[in-house]
Amino acid sequence: MYNIIDGGVCAPQGFLANGVYAGVRKNPNKLDLGLIYSDFPCVSAGVFTLNKAKAAPVIVSQDKSKKGNIQAIIINSGNANSCTGELGILHAHQMANKTAFKLKIDPLNVAVASTGVIGVTLPIDKILSGIDQITHKLTKNSQAASQAIMTTDTYSKSIAINLKICGKNITIGGMAKGSGMIHPNMATMLGFITTDISISQEILQYTLQKVNEDTFNMITVDGETSTNDMVLLLANGLANNPEINSIKDPDWKIFYQGLKYVCQFLSIEIAKDGEGATKLIEVKVTNAKNKEQAKIAARTICGSPLIKSAVHGEDANWGRIVNALGYSGIDLDLNKLSVSLEKLNLFLEGTAIQFDEIEAKNLLKNKTVNIYVNLGLGDGEAVAWGCDLTNEYVNINASYRT
Amino acid sequence: MYNIIDGGVCAPQGFLANGVYAGVRKNPNKLDLGLIYSDFPCVSAGVFTLNKAKAAPVIVSQDKSKKGNIQAIIINSGNANSCTGELGILHAHQMANKTAFKLKIDPLNVAVASTGVIGVTLPIDKILSGIDQITHKLTKNSQAASQAIMTTDTYSKSIAINLKICGKNITIGGMAKGSGMIHPNMATMLGFITTDISISQEILQYTLQKVNEDTFNMITVDGETSTNDMVLLLANGLANNPEINSIKDPDWKIFYQGLKYVCQFLSIEIAKDGEGATKLIEVKVTNAKNKEQAKIAARTICGSPLIKSAVHGEDANWGRIVNALGYSGIDLDLNKLSVSLEKLNLFLEGTAIQFDEIEAKNLLKNKTVNIYVNLGLGDGEAVAWGCDLTNEYVNINASYRT
Repeated sequence: MYNIIDGGVCAPQGFLANGVYAGVRKNPNKLDLGLIYSDFPCVSAGVFTLNKAKAAPVIVSQDKSKKGNIQAIIINSGNANSCTGELGILHAHQMANKTAFKLKIDPLNVAVASTGVIGVTLPIDKILSGIDQITHKLTKNSQAASQAIMTTDTYSKSIAINLKICGKNITIGGMAKGSGMIHPNMATMLGFITTDISISQEILQYTLQKVNEDTFNMITVDGETSTNDMVLLLANGLANNPEINSIKDPDWKIFYQGLKYVCQFLSIEIAKDGEGATKLIEVKVTNAKNKEQAKIAARTICGSPLIKSAVHGEDANWGRIVNALGYSGIDLDLNKLSVSLEKLNLFLEGTAIQFDEIEAKNLLKNKTVNIYVNLGLGDGEAVAWGCDLTNEYVNINASYRT
Repeated sequence: MYNIIDGGVCAPQGFLANGVYAGVRKNPNKLDLGLIYSDFPCVSAGVFTLNKAKAAPVIVSQDKSKKGNIQAIIINSGNANSCTGELGILHAHQMANKTAFKLKIDPLNVAVASTGVIGVTLPIDKILSGIDQITHKLTKNSQAASQAIMTTDTYSKSIAINLKICGKNITIGGMAKGSGMIHPNMATMLGFITTDISISQEILQYTLQKVNEDTFNMITVDGETSTNDMVLLLANGLANNPEINSIKDPDWKIFYQGLKYVCQFLSIEIAKDGEGATKLIEVKVTNAKNKEQAKIAARTICGSPLIKSAVHGEDANWGRIVNALGYSGIDLDLNKLSVSLEKLNLFLEGTAIQFDEIEAKNLLKNKTVNIYVNLGLGDGEAVAWGCDLTNEYVNINASYRT
């Protein structure tokens, strides 16, 4: 597979980052402002939430992303700057403008992201002072930045890998945060990817969208598509490979697969660290009528609170899987349907199997629970990731705001 | 309003019921077999789950319901007879046939319903012996029958009301059960309505479908549309009113409103007693673009685990309501949107209100939490009912089968 290296979003050449405490969050031990910066111009790609109540930073960054030259991203946690009206838009612009001024780059090339509570005015003065601090000491260490974007995540999520293209060393780095209000629709709750590959903006955008469909868009924690979902991908070309400007270029596939690996890694990390989660659930659906139906099936199973609770209780209640398939809206023929837990058959072409309950329980004790569904109808397949539903999810969300 | 009377499904003239322990459930203190019977022929109406993995009793009863003369309903709890293949269909027929034989009526006029665990073969011998018992002592007391259909419900749900039509006393009785896998799509997890009104089968079916859309189809406990959802309505004509055979008949509206009252009462009872619930959530959406969008909006809010958790924690986190509206798919203009808790404004035409947190908390302490959403776009309105999400939901469903 891939050569996984340290450094996260700072691993590719030319990328720097930092994270500070600006005072948005109450707890001064938690960083709340992060910055990612390429000291070389970039082409960029982005995918954004389809939630109609888009947060101010999504509106502002989506607009800037069209030009495709994002070179710096300023991100705060603790406040989503969502449902904050015209003032929220102004604040998002102020964040970008101040960052651009300090970095001496065009404000059009600075994206903004926010995550946290919805509907509260951003403490903009604290953030602007924070931007003075954060731009002062940019480093090749991505750790503070990846910590600064966390909300209820229990750990920060980063990865970097190396590829070879035409003898050149290409690096892709990424970071992301979850971990509630996670049911991405075109993007997830903040993912940032950096790379030093040389690639055209058009192909970069195409590649991100394609990869996003099979990675970030295939996770769910609680079925809640957020107002702030965003994935940004910055490429500064410093690897000096011949520029990729067609998907027919054999190098494109190498990059595509590497990017998919990075995004899939971060997606799984988000699902695994879903609010209150103790287990990762991976659902693989095969032989659906088509790929679209396979995706719906896999994601419906991952999203079912009854299945999530049963996995938490280590109870092989496969009837709930059949039930979820039944209401998912996909084509279903029970006589062709099979469901298994790892290699243990539970339901085989319409017939309930007398399986070994102890073996099933043991498989469910694993940190990763693999559910396989064969629909027996066509050649569509998809994988989705989710997590178990626990008391802790309720506890976290009963008192999130107060 | 209506004159609420005792007697549940036995309140209308000619209806008898019983409930016994047949041995399907492990606990002999919980009844598990119920019977509703009219000793006079009926016209009947039914609505059934749209889940594609329909349980055997749904397939069998839906077929019989087409003829529209259901006169007896035999129901077991403890086993859903779902995903049980051809044997399950045979068992459902055996239940109906034995009941018909004992009651000396046509088997085509006996419906079957089941609720409980999915994918386990029905202990048919125990049920057939139970049918011997249950048909032996039919009474005008509906209590045992309404208890026999319970699964995780904490109490049995019944109601009966009186109406006057052309000087005749009309009675409508009903019973229902919840309380998990509740997100009805054309029907709910077992509702049975009886009435002595004289009405044509065609109008009865039309009326049930219409009422169902605004009542049972507007509740959600966990977003899980079950394989066994079913509502049956039996009318035996013993009230002797002039037969209603047109919706233009002014008497039809009187019946329609009474039936809606009964179904709404039972729907609210199911939502209130959702698995682990401590509070009923009632969401009223007004000024949506149209009625369909109002329904989607109300139901999406009721179904959001983040909103359900916040209500449980008595936290007026209105941002989650806006977020849910944003991903619901309806038309949304934040500048026209208002959200309130009872009469307390939280978000008014695009602007967050500095509301009194203590007042909000007090409103959220109520057993019924009323959320009002004004979309400011059209004249569509709808009400949906749900419940809070608690640790107890997870506890119940982590170990339901084992």
